[in-house]
Amino acid sequence: MTNLDSTLQRRGLMLVLSSPSGAGKTTIANRLLQRDDNLRLSVSVTTRPRRPGEVDGKDYHFIDTAKFETMVAAGELLEHALVHDNYYGTPRRQVAEALDSAGDMLFDIDWQGRRQLAEKEAADLVSVFILPPSAAELARRLKSRAQDSAQVIARRMAKASDEMNQYFDYDYVIVNVDLEHSVRRVHAILEAERFKRVRQVGVRDFVQTLQSDLKTLR
Amino acid sequence: MTNLDSTLQRRGLMLVLSSPSGAGKTTIANRLLQRDDNLRLSVSVTTRPRRPGEVDGKDYHFIDTAKFETMVAAGELLEHALVHDNYYGTPRRQVAEALDSAGDMLFDIDWQGRRQLAEKEAADLVSVFILPPSAAELARRLKSRAQDSAQVIARRMAKASDEMNQYFDYDYVIVNVDLEHSVRRVHAILEAERFKRVRQVGVRDFVQTLQSDLKTLR
Repeated sequence: MTNLDSTLQRRGLMLVLSSPSGAGKTTIANRLLQRDDNLRLSVSVTTRPRRPGEVDGKDYHFIDTAKFETMVAAGELLEHALVHDNYYGTPRRQVAEALDSAGDMLFDIDWQGRRQLAEKEAADLVSVFILPPSAAELARRLKSRAQDSAQVIARRMAKASDEMNQYFDYDYVIVNVDLEHSVRRVHAILEAERFKRVRQVGVRDFVQTLQSDLKTLR
Repeated sequence: MTNLDSTLQRRGLMLVLSSPSGAGKTTIANRLLQRDDNLRLSVSVTTRPRRPGEVDGKDYHFIDTAKFETMVAAGELLEHALVHDNYYGTPRRQVAEALDSAGDMLFDIDWQGRRQLAEKEAADLVSVFILPPSAAELARRLKSRAQDSAQVIARRMAKASDEMNQYFDYDYVIVNVDLEHSVRRVHAILEAERFKRVRQVGVRDFVQTLQSDLKTLR
């Protein structure tokens, strides 16, 4: 349903969504992917165990630590990070190919991942930080993940509080009060960023053609 | 109908629309004002004669050259420019008051005006350059303004060609192929820019409150 794309040749962008655990970023990411045909999820590799309902190759590529270390050594990861004692990383090739063909990539990664992307690919990066509407709501969401133990939940709450400090590195900040509103907000950001002059690499040729054609009409 | 505004305290922004004559920016500006409750038009002062259908105080404040020069000397204009032998300028006070109270201001001005705003108020500025879909369509639109003479039209076509070079100074570029699409695109830009971290001056306090509340819940 995306019919707002540019008529000019453009370069794809990397849309990073981050948030403290439990603020709702993964739900927002999934809704956004349903809503926009030109946005694809960057599927990370991870060494963390697969959770019930997760699909290998769709949610993550689940790999072991040895394979992960091989990929890091070979420079095949655009970013990688250690989160809750597990490794996560972004394969480089799928991203490069998408951006060159005007495809936009969505990254559901944490602030460590965003920082590495920013060091390597700042010009293509658009980053959005999602905040929970209140501490009580965040606590409720963290507790409702049935598969986590009380100890894990307590650790996550402390970590969520720390993670919030990272909002300052992000281009946009959204408070996730209402899921549908948050999805529309992030989608507006995606649509707007596509029209940034710097991404529309075809604009110079387009203007020169207009000017040349105007000469013949005068 | 704007229900996507931030829940955080934020600073207003200055949305500048510019285009070569005839590319459709004034029509886009009017549609945008109808669509968004929180956007108001910055009404410029001008020394150019009032056209049929224009209303003093709504389309422009029509003033004489002596009054214009007094305002410039008193520093009451945020920007001013000479366009087609007439002066145009933006009164400073209405803008400052709007931005401080989270109101967004729309500027239907040319590249000279944008440049002066950028020198003084870069942080609050969001600029969009509108291009016509083709030279033939631009020529058609310039000719359909019945009140302009053939000589004026020829001069405008030459000037439009020159003005197009200024796209490079703008944050966003939109090719106005379809009016409704262009309005939606500019509206997405407006909605997105409201969520820029730098505009949401309340985010720091909000995060500190979240963190403090989380401590009591742990």
